[in-house]
Amino acid sequence: MKCEQDFVNFLEKLESYSGSILKGIGDDCSIVKFNNKKKYVFTTDTSLLGPHFTKDYSPEDIGYKCLATNISDIASMGCIPLYAMYALTLPKMSESWLKRFYRGSQRLLKQHKISIIGGDTTKGPLSITIQMIGIQKYNILLRSGAKLDDGIYVTGTIGNARAALLSKKRTLGYNYFKRHLVNPTPRVTLGLEISKFASSCIDISDGLAKDLKNIAVSSDKGFIVNIDKIPLKPKFNQFVPKKLIEECILGGGEDYELCFTADNKYNNKINIISNKLKLKITKIGSITSKGYKYIKDGKAYKVKTKGYDHFSNK
Amino acid sequence: MKCEQDFVNFLEKLESYSGSILKGIGDDCSIVKFNNKKKYVFTTDTSLLGPHFTKDYSPEDIGYKCLATNISDIASMGCIPLYAMYALTLPKMSESWLKRFYRGSQRLLKQHKISIIGGDTTKGPLSITIQMIGIQKYNILLRSGAKLDDGIYVTGTIGNARAALLSKKRTLGYNYFKRHLVNPTPRVTLGLEISKFASSCIDISDGLAKDLKNIAVSSDKGFIVNIDKIPLKPKFNQFVPKKLIEECILGGGEDYELCFTADNKYNNKINIISNKLKLKITKIGSITSKGYKYIKDGKAYKVKTKGYDHFSNK
Repeated sequence: MKCEQDFVNFLEKLESYSGSILKGIGDDCSIVKFNNKKKYVFTTDTSLLGPHFTKDYSPEDIGYKCLATNISDIASMGCIPLYAMYALTLPKMSESWLKRFYRGSQRLLKQHKISIIGGDTTKGPLSITIQMIGIQKYNILLRSGAKLDDGIYVTGTIGNARAALLSKKRTLGYNYFKRHLVNPTPRVTLGLEISKFASSCIDISDGLAKDLKNIAVSSDKGFIVNIDKIPLKPKFNQFVPKKLIEECILGGGEDYELCFTADNKYNNKINIISNKLKLKITKIGSITSKGYKYIKDGKAYKVKTKGYDHFSNK
Repeated sequence: MKCEQDFVNFLEKLESYSGSILKGIGDDCSIVKFNNKKKYVFTTDTSLLGPHFTKDYSPEDIGYKCLATNISDIASMGCIPLYAMYALTLPKMSESWLKRFYRGSQRLLKQHKISIIGGDTTKGPLSITIQMIGIQKYNILLRSGAKLDDGIYVTGTIGNARAALLSKKRTLGYNYFKRHLVNPTPRVTLGLEISKFASSCIDISDGLAKDLKNIAVSSDKGFIVNIDKIPLKPKFNQFVPKKLIEECILGGGEDYELCFTADNKYNNKINIISNKLKLKITKIGSITSKGYKYIKDGKAYKVKTKGYDHFSNK
């Protein structure tokens, strides 16, 4: 069991004792049916100093980002976030730190009308685990629904979080990308809109190449992606050295944009949604029967990056 | 904000956006209504090397205890545990450690038919956060329902976990108490039985004195407890030095026995349940209008111990 995916596979094999669990571990959330009308989705994420935030993050930034990543898991399922539980491990109990931490969370809690329904505090190295519960509105989006010839779409622009991470602090480049790394925007409204017709969805947390491969594997399909179509911020190429571009746009996680697939007949609908929400949505490729292919400058391109794994150094 | 209770008070003040939250933070669980028939209870607990388990715990012991403490929170609400989410932070991904950890959890998962519905792993200092969801069967027990003259009852025997903690490893005394510290039994069946009539309930996790005070404060009442009535294991006095007895039975947490209050007319019913479940239930005192009084050897007794707080050294 070398990596996180093995752990997920391991959990999937554990016995389930309830008929109301419609989807266990393996997607961004699990799905549970509490009554005959609506399904609920559940997710949990731990954020640590080091992999998830660094010493220069303000308490507000930490409070924002830890919550945003959990909301993003709900968004990628096409659901509405409802409740959160906070389990905080803190080196010491500081009222001012906690107030600032919650001020950071508050923005998102208010915006999405999320209630905190539980909390636990322990003393130890800084660690924040948030569990979130969401509710279905239209359809629930899974990773496993991609169909042959479906278009592959991404929201916003890609690679910004990693570009910030690789830039020197306080440089023009860092400032240009920072917001995406520190204050990512979970795509809840977009997730709801596309849940009416999209065939699969994932949030880009571990890098586009790895996350898209997750869709392909879960759907038992392949894909072809045109790297030149991947949407970048206007000054991306100005600030990111050429040799780091692939790592940023394919390997870099933490963008928390959505990557989804949909039948090509919904192209126009996707344009309408994009205009309505003022959010760029770009078709970057198509679902194929097998293989993971990339095109760059019109030619086949071999990708080196592997995407983020919490237990390797990549 | 010096201690955990302040954090809970702080969380209680945060805005709630949903009418379906019947009880927010402040009890062992929060209560959410998902449909018109049943209510669900939610809890989260983090376990760390140091305060919750020590280096001599086997992975099986850790897997058992982390889950048991969460089940105990559900039991203290008089509910049935249903689902668990695991957020694990591990220094390295080890298949054999994880298998042994889950083997420890498995006993309880099977016994209580609990399904794991979510998981996350990150790399860092060992830390295990489990969230648990339970469902109401009869009434949901709160801390706040104690009435004047209600009897105060505890299950099993008290002080064993702290007695183990204070004993030297591998001594006769340690072996005598160890099971209670390392493999506590969550009182789910008893919680369900008493939920039909008890007025309040809490699990003894932070020490009887502190947990009982939580009931009194939440219920806006006082109590009188006869220390000589607190049930002890037969050889308790043989192994615990006299000067440590108070700390074990009043200050020592982690017993995960239930402490509940009920009208005295249910005395006989409580005896019947005790016989049916083969679980000792002992009346140790009564609810009063105010004040926290202890009697020992027929005289008023001043308690020194304060109970466990994660952010002090007590």
